[in-house]
Amino acid sequence: MNLIIDGGTVVTMGCEGIIRGGDVVVENGRIVDVGKGAKIRRKYYGYEKIDAKGKVVIPGLVNTHQHAAMSLLRGYADDFPLMEWLENWIWPLEKHITSQDIHVGALLTAVESIMGGTTTVNSMYHYETSGNEAEAFAQVGLRGVIGHVCFSWRKEGDVKALRELARGWHGKADGLLRVSVDPHAAYTVDPEYMKELRAITKELNEKYASPDSPVMWHTHIAETEDEPEKIRKAFNVSFEGGVAEYLDSLGVLGSDVIAAHCVSLSPGDIEILKVRGVKVSHNPVSNLKLGSGVSPVPSLLKAGVTVALGTDSSCSNNTSDMFEVMKVAALLHKGLHKDPTLLSAEEVLRMATIEGAKALLWDQQIGSIETGKSADLAIVDFKKPHLCPLFNEISHLVYSARAADVETVLINGNVVMKNRELTTINVHRVLEMAEKTKERLLTRLAQG
Amino acid sequence: MNLIIDGGTVVTMGCEGIIRGGDVVVENGRIVDVGKGAKIRRKYYGYEKIDAKGKVVIPGLVNTHQHAAMSLLRGYADDFPLMEWLENWIWPLEKHITSQDIHVGALLTAVESIMGGTTTVNSMYHYETSGNEAEAFAQVGLRGVIGHVCFSWRKEGDVKALRELARGWHGKADGLLRVSVDPHAAYTVDPEYMKELRAITKELNEKYASPDSPVMWHTHIAETEDEPEKIRKAFNVSFEGGVAEYLDSLGVLGSDVIAAHCVSLSPGDIEILKVRGVKVSHNPVSNLKLGSGVSPVPSLLKAGVTVALGTDSSCSNNTSDMFEVMKVAALLHKGLHKDPTLLSAEEVLRMATIEGAKALLWDQQIGSIETGKSADLAIVDFKKPHLCPLFNEISHLVYSARAADVETVLINGNVVMKNRELTTINVHRVLEMAEKTKERLLTRLAQG
Repeated sequence: MNLIIDGGTVVTMGCEGIIRGGDVVVENGRIVDVGKGAKIRRKYYGYEKIDAKGKVVIPGLVNTHQHAAMSLLRGYADDFPLMEWLENWIWPLEKHITSQDIHVGALLTAVESIMGGTTTVNSMYHYETSGNEAEAFAQVGLRGVIGHVCFSWRKEGDVKALRELARGWHGKADGLLRVSVDPHAAYTVDPEYMKELRAITKELNEKYASPDSPVMWHTHIAETEDEPEKIRKAFNVSFEGGVAEYLDSLGVLGSDVIAAHCVSLSPGDIEILKVRGVKVSHNPVSNLKLGSGVSPVPSLLKAGVTVALGTDSSCSNNTSDMFEVMKVAALLHKGLHKDPTLLSAEEVLRMATIEGAKALLWDQQIGSIETGKSADLAIVDFKKPHLCPLFNEISHLVYSARAADVETVLINGNVVMKNRELTTINVHRVLEMAEKTKERLLTRLAQG
Repeated sequence: MNLIIDGGTVVTMGCEGIIRGGDVVVENGRIVDVGKGAKIRRKYYGYEKIDAKGKVVIPGLVNTHQHAAMSLLRGYADDFPLMEWLENWIWPLEKHITSQDIHVGALLTAVESIMGGTTTVNSMYHYETSGNEAEAFAQVGLRGVIGHVCFSWRKEGDVKALRELARGWHGKADGLLRVSVDPHAAYTVDPEYMKELRAITKELNEKYASPDSPVMWHTHIAETEDEPEKIRKAFNVSFEGGVAEYLDSLGVLGSDVIAAHCVSLSPGDIEILKVRGVKVSHNPVSNLKLGSGVSPVPSLLKAGVTVALGTDSSCSNNTSDMFEVMKVAALLHKGLHKDPTLLSAEEVLRMATIEGAKALLWDQQIGSIETGKSADLAIVDFKKPHLCPLFNEISHLVYSARAADVETVLINGNVVMKNRELTTINVHRVLEMAEKTKERLLTRLAQG
């Protein structure tokens, strides 16, 4: 479909900066022109027009850490100590989760993401052949990286799932989907298995991927300060320094690794992340809510590490709202370091767009509004009291705009939401399904 | 007007807890019944009905620290060091603010507040007889405490303004408005003037107020750690301990004082706040954004101090969104103390409702849904992806709900917003006015 998004303020996050009264032209899913004035309108006369006057057009937001299926457990248990939360609440319920539940939970996340201007989601969960997150994303038209999470205790199942996931979904759904190998964490995946997962990643890349569309690694690193101790105890290994230093000693870190959290890092860890080109997914809302602490993002940025943003799951956030994550990220480091110049609005908007795309090695196609890239866009309505008056669009996008201000969303040129109505799925039906699915899950839990 | 809000989940924040499928009955601005079942519906048969099925009814939120007029400067300058921000940006622009600007800025805040479920706002700004915040609140039907901020450099003007404010507005607009005496801060109001303001408060209370509707004190205390030093330098005084200890040595603290921020407190300060019954307005978003730090709220709560929540102005937040403040308050202390049990969702919802009402000495009338109280209510639509599925209403209200989920708002029994449309003012017109007012302000600034 060919269309022109007309007359909006285009925040490109690319070389062209902000274009007021600008136009974005889309042909067959790609941005073919970005500019302003009568000339561009004449040139593409007859294209279907989306009126963006008084609105702000931004690259779709990139959520670099999710567990999409877990939206089904949103608000099930909060405010408990971490281990009590996991052992008494989350894990007992998760035992009863079926592949159907995974699919419904991921649908819910996909819908919520799009309604909040997020067009790409990097999700780690259990892959099941029938009923999975990939299917849900494809159904709704959301771009994403779908991973299968691996644990030492189920190597065989993992390897099978990884192969099926890659064969079934890498590069599928018009290229919207990619897959990843997801070692859960350094304390749940033993050193040998960690290396095996590297070998499997190589195998899957050779079979199913191309250099510009790789099978990624997605893992949790240093979410809490006790991880080094947990690794030592779990695998009877001895090492100095932090979790990244330990993983590097196994030779598994590289530029295809996206590391969620990175809260408790040693100075050596930061150096390793930089040298190996590991990308960090900063999840401030989740880290605060679970009492994990605060990632040293200013130090990471200073060291030159790519830092992107993530929501984490709706169990520990409890939303998929990247606007909220942007604001909390922008606020938190200023407050802790008593320095209001840290993480400027522009820097944070970059983290949620182009840096997110870089973190997923997808920046050739997404993360900014530039000719040649995929048309992944969100149109934000600025005619709202909390976005008035207007001095500075970037300030408003980070400090004042809300997920609900997103009016229209394109992914790969498809209008997946128009005037807050999803075009790809009946949202009311998703909510009904999710509620029923939750009820059945609670019934199974009660029956043991 | 008599009406019944029917079939919703009523989160009373009072003794009755949560009533599912409940009804709230309103006669002449007051709640006359709260309950459930056919009996109550029969008893009030014929009353105008607001259908609240699938929705959650909460007490209107209480914002205990604002500078309502300043929404006009939203996003004008961000991410600067505090003094550069004030001296090069905010103060030069504020010099050109007219009474008309104050009125328009306050209208914007009033509209945004109601659209986010906030029904009471405690605002500190410069009172001008013609064009002021009180007028704006009355026009929109918002409940509030309107203060005039006092500085040593303009005693005469202050005293005149305070008397006019109290005479003109205390108890006015059907009792929606009260007024306060607002010493700006301990470093801008000299010790003698501070005591004079106490005397004036006494005078105004005797003239215009009743014991259950007092003229309050609203001030900034210990927003940044350098305040004791600033006080010593400004007034050539010597004292030990923190700002509250200093103020107490002047004999000006009491249970009618609402102290915004309280970030940098000595142990003695906390003790004084408790003993004198001073109420704390916690403004986490603003404190983080300005790089001020984090208030020791868990210690304040442990000491038994009443802690309520505030947004601060849209210059340092940059919204009037109390849902956001609730979530940030709930998250922040968990993360900093690495303790996810701190500030539970319920505790935070109390801070935004009944504790806010207590902080303003208004809890006999507002802050919970109970028979005899004013009908200040917000009806929140829960049929949204980010509020699905539903395990726990309180969790969703604090961790997942958004200002934009508020559908209908009553203040004093008046339906001031219905299905997101304000009934008291044309919002589109307010936005136009605010934009034009901003343009004129910038022109005056450019002309010097």
